[in-house]
Amino acid sequence: MSSGEFEFWFEFASTYSYVAAMRIEAAAAQAGARILWRPFLLGPLFTEQQGIKDSPFNVHPVRGRYMWRDLERLCAKYALPWRKPSVFPRNSILPSRVALLGAEQPWGPDFVRAVYRANFAEDRDISSPPLIEELLTKAGADARAVLAQAESPDTKLRLREQTALAGKLGIFGAPNFLVRGELFFGQDRMDDALAHLGASAATGR
Amino acid sequence: MSSGEFEFWFEFASTYSYVAAMRIEAAAAQAGARILWRPFLLGPLFTEQQGIKDSPFNVHPVRGRYMWRDLERLCAKYALPWRKPSVFPRNSILPSRVALLGAEQPWGPDFVRAVYRANFAEDRDISSPPLIEELLTKAGADARAVLAQAESPDTKLRLREQTALAGKLGIFGAPNFLVRGELFFGQDRMDDALAHLGASAATGR
Repeated sequence: MSSGEFEFWFEFASTYSYVAAMRIEAAAAQAGARILWRPFLLGPLFTEQQGIKDSPFNVHPVRGRYMWRDLERLCAKYALPWRKPSVFPRNSILPSRVALLGAEQPWGPDFVRAVYRANFAEDRDISSPPLIEELLTKAGADARAVLAQAESPDTKLRLREQTALAGKLGIFGAPNFLVRGELFFGQDRMDDALAHLGASAATGR
Repeated sequence: MSSGEFEFWFEFASTYSYVAAMRIEAAAAQAGARILWRPFLLGPLFTEQQGIKDSPFNVHPVRGRYMWRDLERLCAKYALPWRKPSVFPRNSILPSRVALLGAEQPWGPDFVRAVYRANFAEDRDISSPPLIEELLTKAGADARAVLAQAESPDTKLRLREQTALAGKLGIFGAPNFLVRGELFFGQDRMDDALAHLGASAATGR
């Protein structure tokens, strides 16, 4: 029995989104919840909200040093593969456009996980079209057709609009879980978000 | 049987430190761990690291709005009293000096909790000497003597040194748990920190 659906707002360049993306399907299945996949770009939000052109983890090195250690520990805790990427943050525009197209497709979740693994377990360049084509093919998509659509003006506009919507929702980092209008920030809030979904379903709200 | 001791680095003006301070004794008792209380000031670290003179939650309103809602939810989750303070962040210098003196005293933990309740459940001014005197007396301390010592040059220096040490440890927010050289940031990491303490004890590291 399903307790409903919730939105997973993620950014492919985000380390904590990686942890969330690898855990979310098992957690959602256990809660009987359906995931609505919402890729977006953090860069424009960081610029708009904080006036910075880089990750806050680079702008504030003391935060960055902690985050890298925290990520190692989280990956050990959840038994996730981890290799610190040699480039951070990586340009995530292309895979985000593709993920937008895959949000309702059977290949979508596999593709999302494959991109995160490429970035954070294999240290590969996720902005590379050949890599994205390879991951799409492995996920069972018509890679050439999807890539062509990803570069269309319509898809580019959709990603800009989805990023703008993230800002309107009060998003300032990643990942986030949006459960019936309630925003939960950080992969640490996944269980609280799913509990809220269950509680809301039970009370009919 | 004790699994050892760990340091709890907290700031009285910090909302998430409130949640941690109210939960930590039960969690430590369950883990058989001893708490070493480490009050410090975030203000000088924010200025040094980020060049700001205010809480990041005020400097970045989108983060602030989320934090206040998150705090409401956390307090509901842990059944903690909560009233949004009318002043944020409150000046925490005086209670921090006092807590430094109380770190090894029987009245210390009660005093810490009382200050947090005053700030985040009762909306009282924790920089007020009469309030601090009242809370000290209730906690069983010789209030007048402690207050006099809190204002001594030696105590003022100790708090500056403890804050500088926080910076050297890589601290950039609050609360934190320091477990055998390993820093855990955020009240969300309390269980991970205690688990690390247990694991370290078991393996003799």
